[in-house]
Amino acid sequence: MILTVTPNVALDITYRVDRLAPGSAHRVREVAERAGGKGVNVARILHALGHDTLILGFVGDAAAAAVTTDLDRGGLAHRLIPVDGPTRRSVTVVDAGNGEATMFSEPGPPVPAERWRELEAQLAARLPEAAALVVSGSLPPGADDDACARLVRLAAAQRVTVLVDTVGAALLHAAAAGADIVKPNASELLDTTGLADVAAAAGELRRRGARAVVASRGEAGITAFTPHGTWQAAPPTRIVGNPTGSGDAAAAALIAGAVASAPWPDRLREAVALSAAAVIQPTAGSFDMTDYVRFVPHVVVEERHAPGLGR
Amino acid sequence: MILTVTPNVALDITYRVDRLAPGSAHRVREVAERAGGKGVNVARILHALGHDTLILGFVGDAAAAAVTTDLDRGGLAHRLIPVDGPTRRSVTVVDAGNGEATMFSEPGPPVPAERWRELEAQLAARLPEAAALVVSGSLPPGADDDACARLVRLAAAQRVTVLVDTVGAALLHAAAAGADIVKPNASELLDTTGLADVAAAAGELRRRGARAVVASRGEAGITAFTPHGTWQAAPPTRIVGNPTGSGDAAAAALIAGAVASAPWPDRLREAVALSAAAVIQPTAGSFDMTDYVRFVPHVVVEERHAPGLGR
Repeated sequence: MILTVTPNVALDITYRVDRLAPGSAHRVREVAERAGGKGVNVARILHALGHDTLILGFVGDAAAAAVTTDLDRGGLAHRLIPVDGPTRRSVTVVDAGNGEATMFSEPGPPVPAERWRELEAQLAARLPEAAALVVSGSLPPGADDDACARLVRLAAAQRVTVLVDTVGAALLHAAAAGADIVKPNASELLDTTGLADVAAAAGELRRRGARAVVASRGEAGITAFTPHGTWQAAPPTRIVGNPTGSGDAAAAALIAGAVASAPWPDRLREAVALSAAAVIQPTAGSFDMTDYVRFVPHVVVEERHAPGLGR
Repeated sequence: MILTVTPNVALDITYRVDRLAPGSAHRVREVAERAGGKGVNVARILHALGHDTLILGFVGDAAAAAVTTDLDRGGLAHRLIPVDGPTRRSVTVVDAGNGEATMFSEPGPPVPAERWRELEAQLAARLPEAAALVVSGSLPPGADDDACARLVRLAAAQRVTVLVDTVGAALLHAAAAGADIVKPNASELLDTTGLADVAAAAGELRRRGARAVVASRGEAGITAFTPHGTWQAAPPTRIVGNPTGSGDAAAAALIAGAVASAPWPDRLREAVALSAAAVIQPTAGSFDMTDYVRFVPHVVVEERHAPGLGR
């Protein structure tokens, strides 16, 4: 089983409009609504790939029913801890003309310390049956910088592989706690470290304790800095679409590859193909299996031997 | 008492972002949520001006509690008829840099014929105690073109002044039913009539049966084509902001002026001043009384004597 923790579960609302024009009023043509948050999206993709998953995290109580009903409908196992306050919403507006997605993410309700303790206890109880753990997405407002790191340490204590996809101080602490894989996107990686170069920033996170750093670069693909080498993987063509879906698909492929002990080049090939298949879907956490299978042989993976790339 | 009918009540969600950039992800800094829909906004403004109001209409049941709780908190009387389906949401994104508002309105749930009959019965029972009726906003999906017109005829039968602010076939039918005032914005007026000139389009609605046509032109002010003459009223300076709030404030001032039997130039002066005070507020249905009072003497009202302007 792969556990995914989503510290800030959302109700994802997707609007389809004819053309997005800032400063004007838009009649929404189609509304889609479902449970979201990065860890939920990762679980959706793993579930679609045939993995056994369990979604953990917090959900604001105002529209919690909409979230859990949707997860049940998708056959996704979950044990979400309710917190007082509104369910976080994330609104994605898809321009029907150019396919471009514009996203607005609410901050979500703050999570009291005792609810975090509850999550840690729940996670500790589930880890013995887990093959891997994914901690993914933004933290609720006011969360402790060490909040993700505590989850990483619980997994490390039980030798469960853990992937963390978050940003800022929470990412730095998660690296220091020895996360097996951290997967920010390139700009989040630079913002988090304050460095101007992706390789240097990845080196910094590895120096702090992360075993592997995977930086996604949107349509340019992903770069992995690992104990076994540094690789760059790119999709065959430029694909425009929903960027959230893309990063979560990459995380799903990377953790699935880690569970299978696949070599890094294979993990990256899968991650880029799955990202490319996800990015063309209007809603995060979805992909078309045919696209995915079709993209795999076209991904270009190259080993990088430049000095200082964290080998 | 002034009755306002909102056929498609919404939960209005306002997001404040640093800068709206199409195609990118935005962290929302502030979320404001309240009951909306044009008729609700009109009632809010009338209520703030000291009028006794009653909000009628339909609300989808999914988040109806959020809507009614907010109306109760504002001290706004309401008798909303629940319908199956999601509560309509309207998301407004305010760019903190330039103050520009970008809006996304969901279509809302369809309203079965028997619920419309229920609204008509409710309205008929309330009209004897009403000074005026406002029917404002979009119609639910699948609504009959004659739906607003039936409400207008009920008011006309009891000699209650009625203002209609809607678009398309519903507006044409409302005019034909003899609405006292119809208040589309200029582009809605042109779209509805298929004409290229506002004066000609207003003349067409008056020929069909509307007594007065008031076309709002955003920051350029409003033009009123009435049995007593044609007037143009403009704010002293260009004011950028939330366009929904502006139109609803104009409707509130126009109906309040009609109830007071104020001369048209006075009604327009109030309408433009209240619009200008509302447009600078980030949420529709709000205005600052100081702004309003300050703007009134600066509104420029001019009678127009051009031939064919519907005099």
